[in-house]
Amino acid sequence: MYVVLVYDMEADRTQKMLRLSRRYLTHVQNSVLEGEISAGDLEELRGHIEALLKDGESVVLYELSSDSLLNRTVYGEDPTEDSRFI
Amino acid sequence: MYVVLVYDMEADRTQKMLRLSRRYLTHVQNSVLEGEISAGDLEELRGHIEALLKDGESVVLYELSSDSLLNRTVYGEDPTEDSRFI
Repeated sequence: MYVVLVYDMEADRTQKMLRLSRRYLTHVQNSVLEGEISAGDLEELRGHIEALLKDGESVVLYELSSDSLLNRTVYGEDPTEDSRFI
Repeated sequence: MYVVLVYDMEADRTQKMLRLSRRYLTHVQNSVLEGEISAGDLEELRGHIEALLKDGESVVLYELSSDSLLNRTVYGEDPTEDSRFI
């Protein structure tokens, strides 16, 4: 399973979400992470997200079949830490 | 072609990007839009994005084959204006 996660947190709580989601996914842009994830880890991640979110904050989680991401283009700054092509 | 767009703009320029991308896609979360788009419109949108971005701002554009999005889960606030299930 390939997952793209986008979060929208209060400014002073951004690091909490980033720290959590980085345990499972790769940081792609300020508020975006993505990566291959097992069903079990995804379930775990969902639980952590629900526990962390407060009113006014949100997370969108896209689940894709692993071979369905045709292209990713980053315009502007690209903070991706690794250079792997997906 | 199905596209997910995530932007990271300076606070006072957020509305510009939102106004632009809403001409092509549906607003899903604060900084996320998505939708079915033709190859021609996508090309046009790419040009507008490149023209609009300034240093320090970025956009990530995911292209998916139309039937490959398995699931989208929104945690917290869901500003999606329509209730269509994808």
